[in-house]
Amino acid sequence: MPTPIITLTTDFGHDSPYVAAMKGTILSLNPEARLVDLTHSIPAQNIRQCALSLLTSSVVFPEGTIHVIVVDPGVGTERVLVAVRMNGHYFVAPDNGALDALASRSKADKIIALTESRYWLPEVSATFHGRDILGPVAAHLSLGVPLEKLGDPLDELMPLEWPEVRVEQGEIEGVIESVDSFGNLITNIREDQLGDVPRDESVRIVCDQHETTGIFRTYGDQPEMTLIALVGSIGKLEIAIVGDSAKMMLGVEKGTAVKILW
Amino acid sequence: MPTPIITLTTDFGHDSPYVAAMKGTILSLNPEARLVDLTHSIPAQNIRQCALSLLTSSVVFPEGTIHVIVVDPGVGTERVLVAVRMNGHYFVAPDNGALDALASRSKADKIIALTESRYWLPEVSATFHGRDILGPVAAHLSLGVPLEKLGDPLDELMPLEWPEVRVEQGEIEGVIESVDSFGNLITNIREDQLGDVPRDESVRIVCDQHETTGIFRTYGDQPEMTLIALVGSIGKLEIAIVGDSAKMMLGVEKGTAVKILW
Amino acid sequence: MPTPIITLTTDFGHDSPYVAAMKGTILSLNPEARLVDLTHSIPAQNIRQCALSLLTSSVVFPEGTIHVIVVDPGVGTERVLVAVRMNGHYFVAPDNGALDALASRSKADKIIALTESRYWLPEVSATFHGRDILGPVAAHLSLGVPLEKLGDPLDELMPLEWPEVRVEQGEIEGVIESVDSFGNLITNIREDQLGDVPRDESVRIVCDQHETTGIFRTYGDQPEMTLIALVGSIGKLEIAIVGDSAKMMLGVEKGTAVKILW
Repeated sequence: MPTPIITLTTDFGHDSPYVAAMKGTILSLNPEARLVDLTHSIPAQNIRQCALSLLTSSVVFPEGTIHVIVVDPGVGTERVLVAVRMNGHYFVAPDNGALDALASRSKADKIIALTESRYWLPEVSATFHGRDILGPVAAHLSLGVPLEKLGDPLDELMPLEWPEVRVEQGEIEGVIESVDSFGNLITNIREDQLGDVPRDESVRIVCDQHETTGIFRTYGDQPEMTLIALVGSIGKLEIAIVGDSAKMMLGVEKGTAVKILW
Repeated sequence: MPTPIITLTTDFGHDSPYVAAMKGTILSLNPEARLVDLTHSIPAQNIRQCALSLLTSSVVFPEGTIHVIVVDPGVGTERVLVAVRMNGHYFVAPDNGALDALASRSKADKIIALTESRYWLPEVSATFHGRDILGPVAAHLSLGVPLEKLGDPLDELMPLEWPEVRVEQGEIEGVIESVDSFGNLITNIREDQLGDVPRDESVRIVCDQHETTGIFRTYGDQPEMTLIALVGSIGKLEIAIVGDSAKMMLGVEKGTAVKILW
Repeated sequence: MPTPIITLTTDFGHDSPYVAAMKGTILSLNPEARLVDLTHSIPAQNIRQCALSLLTSSVVFPEGTIHVIVVDPGVGTERVLVAVRMNGHYFVAPDNGALDALASRSKADKIIALTESRYWLPEVSATFHGRDILGPVAAHLSLGVPLEKLGDPLDELMPLEWPEVRVEQGEIEGVIESVDSFGNLITNIREDQLGDVPRDESVRIVCDQHETTGIFRTYGDQPEMTLIALVGSIGKLEIAIVGDSAKMMLGVEKGTAVKILW
């Protein structure tokens, strides 16, 4: 059996020597660890964006994968660090809401507050717990240390507040939740919330000053430069410009309201 | 024998959760897969740039390497996905021209249109075939599934149109084909097309309003801040500013004509 | 025993096909090599920044790790390429000062000038020694070739000049040496140079027009948006804005003087 995969998600920037320092620390403890970068481009200290990114990136990994998350505005203060078993995966992270989007889909089986310092680096800095605590704990998990040994059980993870989707007869209202690298505007409206909303041109999708009709299957269903609504690859309604960036063309930002009317 | 290497080339952006999702999917099918990023910074949907990038990045990998390419403006439409054996490597990609530059150097041994859905994810989205089809097919290839099992044979790959190099006695004309991260301007003029062009100062290289004489061996052959022409590491004529960015200093873009006169 | 780790540090840009070409070349020589990117975002040809980055990123890797460094403004000229054993690690790099910061902390055990061309690619270009010499040499080291076989011994590495820290009674003066991805301003003043400098509000830290009092343990010790001085995770004094970018807020660049007064 290959050694478990350890993935890394941080807000350090992909070019940061801090990322390399975490990798070196993990590999010093488990030279056979297999490291995969999920992303290092979470906007600085943006826990909500981190939570959403994990939803897309982490769940498709094999069972037993260990995900380390270091978006940690509270480093060095009294915030709690946790290791969590959830849906067959492990997560090692500050308990600041970064795991909330995942936990709302698949309840955590076990939550441990990291208190056993023998699984940390011997010297712990006040400003870089990713290298000094979270990375080493992940390395020890990958070496077979049981989750329960890492500290004391906790009952629940810190929740995050999320904008709600309002569903009524003839109208659904949500917001732009994220923007992908193609400039597609991804809303918080999930496919299951669309229910019996028609997909043909009797449905209107309104975002800021912009409006389109119909909910399509894929970008190629409309000609280039058309404003189009579709359910994207993570199962949420998105607004796109075929062959171009909707973010640039519409000048729309995260948080903007989106209405579906039929 | 180690499991084959799987490389990834996309236009998702290096920080995209879509890249991580592809990696997770591949590792779920083959936990021992060895993944290498070629680049995720192909400009969005720029097939020509993808084709050129593969020429530099892919050929030096070991025999048996599997290259997955996801620059796919036609996702969800009737475009064909292919797996190709060429020059001892495997390529899994949309058939949209991305493999054309490679194929013009080294003819494909076998081209298979991907039709056997048992090598895909059970559920295929309409917008992310990199995760749902191309990644899984690469994982199955790495596990030893023969190329021929993946679908039906095709006779040829889709070609791309390229700007031609005009070679006459006393004059060669080409264009700036790409710009590297140092700002060096790389033309489409190959070393073998230079033939008996003199390398000394009797040869003039003209690009836009700018002109230099001589074709040198390396940047260090001229003083700092000098405009210089040389044959670069991929065997094409390039124009550089020693110790600085020719792109920035000359204000020249891709597509600009370059003339060699002697 | 797993095959040694080979790390890569370059100024190619993370999206460069040159990085991929180096990886392919190394994997062609040692298909089991385990590659880790330290960074590819060293500013072009900035040897000083490379030297500082290595200090943070390389030292935590396991013993036996092979670090390849390609920041090489002199490529193709008579500059020397070296392989070095230092503090249990190997370094393969141009001898241009990039290893100076490391060497000043931990003297090199053995320095070899790379002259044995049998460990290089058969054809060496004039402009890309990372792919043609340094990568292959690292691959051969990872396969067990002894350092001494790679060429001829050298007595010392090329030094770099560094701005000095001036330490007097009641006053220490240094400079901003680097800026991390959070915009924290990291000085060249090491913790051991602080000696008996008080940490309470009797100490003033002055940078350009800006001033703060006290040297803290971590960012969370002060409220959001406060200017704060602390000793960071690499053991140097840094100036930060809690929860924001000091670089952006103060408009301060590398090289700016920083005074500690008490």
